[in-house]
Amino acid sequence: MGQFVNAKDAIVTDAIDGLVRSSGGRLRRLDGYPHIRVVTRGDWDRGKVALVSGGGSGHEPAHAGFVGPGMLTAAVCGDVFASPSVDAVLAGILAVTGAAGCLLIVKNYTGDRLNFGLAAERARAFGKRVEMVVVDDDIALPDLPSPRGVAGTLFVHKIAGAAAEAGADLDAVKAAAERVIAGTRSLGMSLDTCWVPGSPREERIPAGKAELGLGIHGEPGVEQVAYEGAAAAMSAVAAKLKTAMGEGPHVALLNNLGGTSELEMAILARDLAASEIGARIGHVIGPASLMTSLDMRGFSVSVYPASAEEIAALSTPVPMTAWPGCDALGEVGIDALPDGLAPIAPEPSSDPQTEAFLRRCCDLLISAEADLNALDAKSGDGDTGSTLAGAARAMTGALGRMPLADHTQLLRAIGQELSQTMGGSSGVLLAIFFTAAGDAAAGGHDMIGALRAGLARMQEIGGAEPGDRTMIDALAPALDALPDGMGAAATAAREGAAHTATLTRARAGRAAYVGEGQLRGNVDPGAEAVARLFEGLAE
Amino acid sequence: MGQFVNAKDAIVTDAIDGLVRSSGGRLRRLDGYPHIRVVTRGDWDRGKVALVSGGGSGHEPAHAGFVGPGMLTAAVCGDVFASPSVDAVLAGILAVTGAAGCLLIVKNYTGDRLNFGLAAERARAFGKRVEMVVVDDDIALPDLPSPRGVAGTLFVHKIAGAAAEAGADLDAVKAAAERVIAGTRSLGMSLDTCWVPGSPREERIPAGKAELGLGIHGEPGVEQVAYEGAAAAMSAVAAKLKTAMGEGPHVALLNNLGGTSELEMAILARDLAASEIGARIGHVIGPASLMTSLDMRGFSVSVYPASAEEIAALSTPVPMTAWPGCDALGEVGIDALPDGLAPIAPEPSSDPQTEAFLRRCCDLLISAEADLNALDAKSGDGDTGSTLAGAARAMTGALGRMPLADHTQLLRAIGQELSQTMGGSSGVLLAIFFTAAGDAAAGGHDMIGALRAGLARMQEIGGAEPGDRTMIDALAPALDALPDGMGAAATAAREGAAHTATLTRARAGRAAYVGEGQLRGNVDPGAEAVARLFEGLAE
Repeated sequence: MGQFVNAKDAIVTDAIDGLVRSSGGRLRRLDGYPHIRVVTRGDWDRGKVALVSGGGSGHEPAHAGFVGPGMLTAAVCGDVFASPSVDAVLAGILAVTGAAGCLLIVKNYTGDRLNFGLAAERARAFGKRVEMVVVDDDIALPDLPSPRGVAGTLFVHKIAGAAAEAGADLDAVKAAAERVIAGTRSLGMSLDTCWVPGSPREERIPAGKAELGLGIHGEPGVEQVAYEGAAAAMSAVAAKLKTAMGEGPHVALLNNLGGTSELEMAILARDLAASEIGARIGHVIGPASLMTSLDMRGFSVSVYPASAEEIAALSTPVPMTAWPGCDALGEVGIDALPDGLAPIAPEPSSDPQTEAFLRRCCDLLISAEADLNALDAKSGDGDTGSTLAGAARAMTGALGRMPLADHTQLLRAIGQELSQTMGGSSGVLLAIFFTAAGDAAAGGHDMIGALRAGLARMQEIGGAEPGDRTMIDALAPALDALPDGMGAAATAAREGAAHTATLTRARAGRAAYVGEGQLRGNVDPGAEAVARLFEGLAE
Repeated sequence: MGQFVNAKDAIVTDAIDGLVRSSGGRLRRLDGYPHIRVVTRGDWDRGKVALVSGGGSGHEPAHAGFVGPGMLTAAVCGDVFASPSVDAVLAGILAVTGAAGCLLIVKNYTGDRLNFGLAAERARAFGKRVEMVVVDDDIALPDLPSPRGVAGTLFVHKIAGAAAEAGADLDAVKAAAERVIAGTRSLGMSLDTCWVPGSPREERIPAGKAELGLGIHGEPGVEQVAYEGAAAAMSAVAAKLKTAMGEGPHVALLNNLGGTSELEMAILARDLAASEIGARIGHVIGPASLMTSLDMRGFSVSVYPASAEEIAALSTPVPMTAWPGCDALGEVGIDALPDGLAPIAPEPSSDPQTEAFLRRCCDLLISAEADLNALDAKSGDGDTGSTLAGAARAMTGALGRMPLADHTQLLRAIGQELSQTMGGSSGVLLAIFFTAAGDAAAGGHDMIGALRAGLARMQEIGGAEPGDRTMIDALAPALDALPDGMGAAATAAREGAAHTATLTRARAGRAAYVGEGQLRGNVDPGAEAVARLFEGLAE
């Protein structure tokens, strides 16, 4: 298996170019490839406090995907999982910092701290006002003096970003960031390792196991635990977070570590809401890919006891599509099923002539069962006769509760009956035929017109045309000839059915998967059934 | 390896509940679990044309993630990769359809066509105005009479959705949808199969191969082709699309099939823009997960020659976070590197006393090289002496271009020099020390105050405190004692260094990874270097 990358040394620059090109001009970059990889806001005028973040690549959309109004001013991108150079960070700072100054938001890794830290010193030597905060939200190793910075960094980007965008000064923006950092706790879990481009794929986690407490660089989790489904996995994460989080309602950030499917992330959102900390989560960000570890099949949960003001900051819309917003975590609103889902049972009525006609039709199909099965066996699975005969037998038994005297209602009732008693695509198609015919009859069509309308709808929905080697090849000419009497219809149906033996390429239905040799000379069993029906009725 | 799911028969209901709960009340669902799984707009008043879509699950965020103002009114969710029942579709239609009627948007699969088709008939029997369109955008099999519906369906959802939201009538909404369907072409490529929950994982695609022209249900692609990197993969897709797309500028939709990392998708966006159809793509939607195939590591590109009006419809913001917006695909805007990135070379000046002092410092460190290496070998990789001596030698050689007579500039220049000549974390930390000291000196501090400010900054950035078994354990007491003279500083440095031999738990630096037994009784080599330096200066 491969990865969608080009030359190894172009991975980060290619990705930045893709992001910037598809941003509609919202993003720009600094010159200086390949060493300087800095993404900046296209609309920046240095009028407010600048927010600069970054670090190793491989965490997309972090950080460049969050550059824009209300979040970051610039992102400095290192190689995959490697800190950017001091020069690159300095370039980012100098490019965007005006008189209001700049806040660096750094995840707690030695390389990032040092390189951002030295760049800040150099920028200060140029007279720039630069402050730096370090995010250390990971609780995987509770005794570690210097916890890692992981997805909780997004809380900082958004809340400090909203403050800066609103015009707060550097001290206030820094204070907002430090408040968030002090209260944020994160924990991750994964079912697989991530695949670093250019490296062999590591298979570290055995089947039946999950890793709890992992970082975002493919390093092993703190422990391997038994994996017993999504709810149990979320429960293990929630239990650890519970001991580390503060009092009161929290905002949770549910992060896809990169390779988890959207379906699974939605399940995890449900499991988070149902977990032992679910009741303490008032708002949720995600589920979404926010701070990934390349393609890792895992997730992380970050929690922060945001104030009402901070929730407003988290909820302020931003144009960056990577930011999923912040919404109240609520119960599921359930609406009652609409009336009429159970079909209206038609009022039975009697009409001896109609009843005899329908009974005759059913008898004809029942008597053709063996022949039709034999014909179908030549190009299909040999059940056309049984399917039709079974439906006919059920219909015979249902005649007593049919609205025989009201032909409009009768057509609909036949459609309803077939949809319940006849399996397969053909059952649905015939149900559509009769239901649509009933609809047309209700709209004023006579019986032949109604049947034609039903046929048109069946063709439209089923996608088969005359010549496609289906029952339509007999039914369509029969209905066309029906104004001239049942004898004419029978003749036309037979001619149409016979023609199907010359059609060696089916374009619809199951016969589309059957070779030419098996089709030549054999009449389509559906068309044969129609011909038999009309021939019997014409006798 | 596992998947984040719970009981197999709860996969879809769990995921719907997760989506609805985290929607902030924007979404609701119909009663009727487990058979009826219909997600609806929470704010719907039946005042406009309703748009109902759906199909098998496993394509998240499609379709439920696109329910909301300006796109779908309801989504009917089947099991993973299986069509929902007629009853479920009918429930969805009846729940949201008012006098303005309803448009069903169906992807071209037999099950969906039939079940949505029959549900439409039944709804009509209730007097509802229901129309249906079938999306068939896949060009993988050019001869197929009935192409599959894939990610191009999103163009239909958005453009028809914008029309409905704007109050267009059913005929106009249907016409808009049919125009989009007629012009949309899609093609997918993947490096791996998808993993259907509850089924064994299939490894169909060998290393070095990719599948071109695949659907969204894990079915094999039309052909396996050699895989030669992201650009070549995109080029193969672009070549096929080129033959099938219309004239003029197109909107492209770049879809993640589920398991491709965000980094890779950004690279593919770049490669799409650089491909042979790149010049014909005026706008882009994504890259984003829009119509996934569970966790498939693949992508698809859909193209549509949207009119200006349709581009406006695609660009109209909607509150659903799954919709990534539509942006102009542009060139990369590049800003020049900021001035001052190349450090200002200080004006050299002479000061014999200062020069002698610095030379003496360098000599002391050079002469300690072997001893410090030996000490470091006991708890590290034995290069502390070489690292410091190397920097000292470089500094000796640089004395001639140093601003020796301006101590403020000198501190900064030493920091700059060390950042270029001394590797590793310690090089950056010492650069921070001297640069910050220079900053403090510029701010009016005397030399001792400046050095203390440098130390404080180094501690802040490096995260080490006294007692953490680093050079700080000698440097901090030495600076504290320095007002009492160099002799006092030397004594304090030595005492501090000696103390590190009793510190058996390093909390910072590389020794943090070393066991207690290797640390006890050994002085930290960084602290030893500081002690040697002050002792030598005091002689």
